[in-house]
Amino acid sequence: MQSQSPSSRPAARFFLGIVSAAALLSMGSAGAQEPVQPIAPHKVTNPAQVTLGKKLWFDPRLSRSGFISCNSCHNLSMGGSDNLKTSIGDKWQKGPINSPTVLNSSLNLAQFWDGRAKDLKEQAGGPIANPGEMAFSHDLAVDMLRSIPQYVAEFKRVFGHDKLTIDEVTAAIAAFEETLVTPNARFDQWLKGDKKAITAQELRGYQIFKTSGCVACHNGPNLGGNSFQKMGLVEAYKTDNPAEGRSAVTGNDAERFNFKVPTLRNVELTYPYFHDGAADTLAEAVDTMGRIQLGKKFTAQENADIVAFLKTLTGDQPQIALPILPPSSDATKRPQPFD
Amino acid sequence: MQSQSPSSRPAARFFLGIVSAAALLSMGSAGAQEPVQPIAPHKVTNPAQVTLGKKLWFDPRLSRSGFISCNSCHNLSMGGSDNLKTSIGDKWQKGPINSPTVLNSSLNLAQFWDGRAKDLKEQAGGPIANPGEMAFSHDLAVDMLRSIPQYVAEFKRVFGHDKLTIDEVTAAIAAFEETLVTPNARFDQWLKGDKKAITAQELRGYQIFKTSGCVACHNGPNLGGNSFQKMGLVEAYKTDNPAEGRSAVTGNDAERFNFKVPTLRNVELTYPYFHDGAADTLAEAVDTMGRIQLGKKFTAQENADIVAFLKTLTGDQPQIALPILPPSSDATKRPQPFD
Repeated sequence: MQSQSPSSRPAARFFLGIVSAAALLSMGSAGAQEPVQPIAPHKVTNPAQVTLGKKLWFDPRLSRSGFISCNSCHNLSMGGSDNLKTSIGDKWQKGPINSPTVLNSSLNLAQFWDGRAKDLKEQAGGPIANPGEMAFSHDLAVDMLRSIPQYVAEFKRVFGHDKLTIDEVTAAIAAFEETLVTPNARFDQWLKGDKKAITAQELRGYQIFKTSGCVACHNGPNLGGNSFQKMGLVEAYKTDNPAEGRSAVTGNDAERFNFKVPTLRNVELTYPYFHDGAADTLAEAVDTMGRIQLGKKFTAQENADIVAFLKTLTGDQPQIALPILPPSSDATKRPQPFD
Repeated sequence: MQSQSPSSRPAARFFLGIVSAAALLSMGSAGAQEPVQPIAPHKVTNPAQVTLGKKLWFDPRLSRSGFISCNSCHNLSMGGSDNLKTSIGDKWQKGPINSPTVLNSSLNLAQFWDGRAKDLKEQAGGPIANPGEMAFSHDLAVDMLRSIPQYVAEFKRVFGHDKLTIDEVTAAIAAFEETLVTPNARFDQWLKGDKKAITAQELRGYQIFKTSGCVACHNGPNLGGNSFQKMGLVEAYKTDNPAEGRSAVTGNDAERFNFKVPTLRNVELTYPYFHDGAADTLAEAVDTMGRIQLGKKFTAQENADIVAFLKTLTGDQPQIALPILPPSSDATKRPQPFD
């Protein structure tokens, strides 16, 4: 199972076939043999950078309107998502795709549904400059931060130099995001040997999850996030959403409708589901996935058992002390929400 | 000065003339004789109600879109305000007026700029049902909460009964808001006898603030919030904003353009200023107030001194642990941001 560890992530998708077979064989015994591994708590190595990143995460001045922050669409009160089908961007624009949770996103092999950002740092710059999201620009974001003496001083303390570019901004945000892991889910307690941590129904759900093939894509510590897979493997997925998935990044038509497999960690909190947010409930998502990915029709009991298992994946949510943001100075350009 | 205490608030505005005269006489001696009093820390008497109220405060499901929470316009990371001229409401509607800070708002004689809500509980129901703000209804908000088992259980624990109506919702939000006081500003330390807590310039600013007449309206523990006053007493205030102030509530034309005097607590954080948010900076706000309220043109030095004093009013900001919101159930009606 070591091929899923973050340190060897790029290799993960190539080994997936082997991993899946191993996963199926390991059925029934908990712990090291399982295709799912516990999440480890994050060890903070640079607390000052994390503290700065948290401020930036919550700062709506990184948007043109002064109203939208990272936390608007990846709300840490709500499983790191906005619980909307698609997000609301600058001037109430309808987003193109469902906001993936930020929780445990450091464990993903790449970022965005189509994996177009190689890591969290690269991802963090995207929404700031996206005209349909925060609708700012990297230059304007940096100008804003440079006009605020408390930020200038803090960037200098954290990075040890006077450059304050988008590189420092996204590095700090990524450092904060890396802390957003959710260890200690009941399922992790079970994996670690506490046989009473989950109920008989939940265990039954896990067994169906493994034997039905769900685990072929949703495996590793993040139960997903480590491969791209075609949405609609057995039966075509019907959606109005125009997203093309991985092919939009690689130009390879064979990867059309391939999306990064979403994590199932905290899935109870991150509704609605799929890249188009079309499934409102876990029961609906499990039913659709069974049908289009596995050619299976789960019975009502099987569906309920799988849903019960999925709810054991809710881990300890990050404890966030809301940051107090440094005030704008007289020189700070004011937001333009209505112009 | 006891006439400014919250317990005798309704009488405050009638005594204002007397208070102001007393305030001017007390110039120069710190502490009990001053027209400004320190803010006392809030004593929580019902922690369970406060905890529930905090969840509701941060819950965007109290809006039709599922995107706007109380905290969107009264952001506790930014002085309890949104730092925008006027707020952004459902579908990006432009709000009619500048969002007042929620910080220390329990000390106000009434709520909203025109004082149309007698207290925080009455105020809290306003934005939820306002079509231009959260655009929901009280019934829909209550239906939403009743569909979430964790909320139902928590309301029952807190209120001791099974009714879950808008009354319980607004009572809990108000209980949370009452905790949002900001004691221990440097100016409070000075008032309590620490002569080194403020600089010579800041003290000079306070003296100008008192001798120029600012303190006639901005007095008491909240430096405002305890009377309605005409905006443009000496010189008419020019604005495109159509708000009529107190007369819209009382029907008394003599109260046209009378607004609740805003608090100056944390004023460094709550830009832009005035009911129309027209003043971007403290220097601009001080200049305008001097001119239209007092018929004075402050010199650049006087203006800078007053601004320096105003910045001593930033108190300890509330330490908020971000709540984790109970997830929607399958029965919870989903938000409708784009319909």
